[in-house]
Amino acid sequence: MKSIGHAALEASKVLSKTSTATKNAALLSIANSINVHREALLDANIKDVQKAQNNGLDAAMLDRLTLNDQRIDAIIEGLNQVAGLPEPVGNISELEMRPSGIQLGKMSAPIGVVGIIYESRPNVTIDAASLCLKAGNATILRGGSEAIESNRALGDCINIGLASSGLPSAAIQIIQTTDRAVVGELITMTEYIDVIIPRGGKSLIQRLSKDARVPLIKHLDGNCHVYIDSEADTQKALAIAINAKTHRYGVCNAMESLLVSAAIAEDILPSLIQKLIAKGVEIRGCAATCLLSGDVLKAAESDWSEEYLAPIVAVKIVSGIDEAIDHINQYGSKHTDSIVTENQATGHRFLVEVDSSSVMINASTRFADGFEYGLGAEIGISTDKIHARGPVGLKGLTNQKWVVFGDGHIRQ
Amino acid sequence: MKSIGHAALEASKVLSKTSTATKNAALLSIANSINVHREALLDANIKDVQKAQNNGLDAAMLDRLTLNDQRIDAIIEGLNQVAGLPEPVGNISELEMRPSGIQLGKMSAPIGVVGIIYESRPNVTIDAASLCLKAGNATILRGGSEAIESNRALGDCINIGLASSGLPSAAIQIIQTTDRAVVGELITMTEYIDVIIPRGGKSLIQRLSKDARVPLIKHLDGNCHVYIDSEADTQKALAIAINAKTHRYGVCNAMESLLVSAAIAEDILPSLIQKLIAKGVEIRGCAATCLLSGDVLKAAESDWSEEYLAPIVAVKIVSGIDEAIDHINQYGSKHTDSIVTENQATGHRFLVEVDSSSVMINASTRFADGFEYGLGAEIGISTDKIHARGPVGLKGLTNQKWVVFGDGHIRQ
Repeated sequence: MKSIGHAALEASKVLSKTSTATKNAALLSIANSINVHREALLDANIKDVQKAQNNGLDAAMLDRLTLNDQRIDAIIEGLNQVAGLPEPVGNISELEMRPSGIQLGKMSAPIGVVGIIYESRPNVTIDAASLCLKAGNATILRGGSEAIESNRALGDCINIGLASSGLPSAAIQIIQTTDRAVVGELITMTEYIDVIIPRGGKSLIQRLSKDARVPLIKHLDGNCHVYIDSEADTQKALAIAINAKTHRYGVCNAMESLLVSAAIAEDILPSLIQKLIAKGVEIRGCAATCLLSGDVLKAAESDWSEEYLAPIVAVKIVSGIDEAIDHINQYGSKHTDSIVTENQATGHRFLVEVDSSSVMINASTRFADGFEYGLGAEIGISTDKIHARGPVGLKGLTNQKWVVFGDGHIRQ
Repeated sequence: MKSIGHAALEASKVLSKTSTATKNAALLSIANSINVHREALLDANIKDVQKAQNNGLDAAMLDRLTLNDQRIDAIIEGLNQVAGLPEPVGNISELEMRPSGIQLGKMSAPIGVVGIIYESRPNVTIDAASLCLKAGNATILRGGSEAIESNRALGDCINIGLASSGLPSAAIQIIQTTDRAVVGELITMTEYIDVIIPRGGKSLIQRLSKDARVPLIKHLDGNCHVYIDSEADTQKALAIAINAKTHRYGVCNAMESLLVSAAIAEDILPSLIQKLIAKGVEIRGCAATCLLSGDVLKAAESDWSEEYLAPIVAVKIVSGIDEAIDHINQYGSKHTDSIVTENQATGHRFLVEVDSSSVMINASTRFADGFEYGLGAEIGISTDKIHARGPVGLKGLTNQKWVVFGDGHIRQ
């Protein structure tokens, strides 16, 4: 592992000065190599899938592990898209003349060496590697052990692409062992790795957080709320709540808790509950919600903290904006929360006081992702409080250094 | 400690929605209270100083521990200045209309709860607390045990100021015990504290890094370089090197290593060495430098990594820009490095390829601080690679959340 870390550090020095043209050429070469070696990739993936089936992996995980022609096309398209994104490093901004006469600005720069620890999803291997490469970072990838054959085959394609563009093979390294001790080493190699982005379940990320010495950019969970204020427009409220819950269930920006102002609950909740139930959603409500409909199950305290990733929603009637904000800040996961209101002042309070990476007025929580935000692609959604919050794209994979232009200036 | 953490978290919720006027009133009230209780402060400080003298604290540390009328005036002036800085939170920027019709932007927000672990310098208590308060963060301060009486007295002034503005006393908490176990608790209370900013010696910070679970914004050391390129203007080079080394010795942005292109070394180094020696600077040079002057001591390998904080400089003759960049990236501390050159392309390479928080062309490294950069004040200088790099002011004490304005928008 030390030699992998050292090689990544050396590669990061090369990448920091690699031209846009070369980085894009490498991305397109990797895409081409994946296309050319499509059969070998599918063969390797079948080995992973068969082994996982024999080991009784559940259907959802098997689905994520599986590659097919359509998914390989999507991987190739992703590489093309990242190649088409604007250059994220070397941009100088905020130039200003200081009273001393120096000209001061900021320049975007690669972070350095990024480690990615992720689940058994072969597409993440390429998504993560391509964004990191474009941002000028060296990457060390540690995917789930179930995907090892697929990742090795993808690694071969990556190596061909890097070599054809004259970039060091250590620019993107895939760890070729399924030994779990490797993760423990990765998250403590502060001398080589600048940041680790873990992807996967909450328990994995909590475990990594406990032992990591390298800074993490982490996504714990998405317990997203919609709060329907007393001054909400009913049609907007219905549309947003239904979209946020039912557009997709297994995603981190789906609504998991619905809060409704007591002043409007009787008007809006019965029909909203019926619409959700008609779509197959199970409703777990507070005592007051249960009184409004016989189809509502009684919510337990734990429901307010739950990320269901399923057709279930927790519903609570609150006294107003104060209780809504308190509830979200107490039970939420700092991911994405939305208020439905026509009152500008109430909406503004929600934006300021809800401590989440995305806060919204009159919009579905489902908008919180890198594509909708125009980042081109995202490597994850951060629920942390420093560095990048929310969807992390190329900007979150870079930092800003100060640049000073003088002409012989000295400090008086 | 749990109750301190919990109280800070609750206070941070109040501070996140506190108006600019109230925050500024609190800062000015604290200033007024310090002015009114000047005698009590000086009395408390004398107790600390006498105890430290009895315990044989060295002169430099005693000096930092000591308060006098002039220093209290400076603390009061600092509070006034922070009150005068622009409001750092709630600012919305980068608003854009997305193709979906939502309006997307970013809003600056407090980080939440900030812990400061610092040396026995009573002025830091107020500097740090005032910046954190202005940024809307709750602060937990843990100063060096030698300053405990001074910090308790300052804490009384802070409490008076907070109370008179209606802010919770837990907005700024000073830990009232010198028990060292407290630090171990502070750096692991991830449920209450969002970030810790440690200030102090490199060994302290390395020790904290090993045990911390809370993210750190840390400043390890300042091994700053000036590189005199073959195309440097001699007068600028002399002025910058002498200023960077001799303007002040005990500061983190002083030049500790001087690199000189071999092509210009014979022309410039003998006179530069004489000027530095005339100012009392000890020169530790590479073999080639020793050949140029009999007054140069032979540098050891360890000299290239040293932060002297003293009238000593390490000097190395390098083959050119490539070796200079490699040397800085290998031995430097990612703090501040400057090139002296008239060649635009060479200068640009230095800015891009030197991986430091401040990179400069034709300017003294001494410019790298919050005041010179116009931050108003700084809570430290980060040598980390994520979140804020370099001088950390109000902006580094905030983050940016995404804000979305819709009008009933749902995801298609």
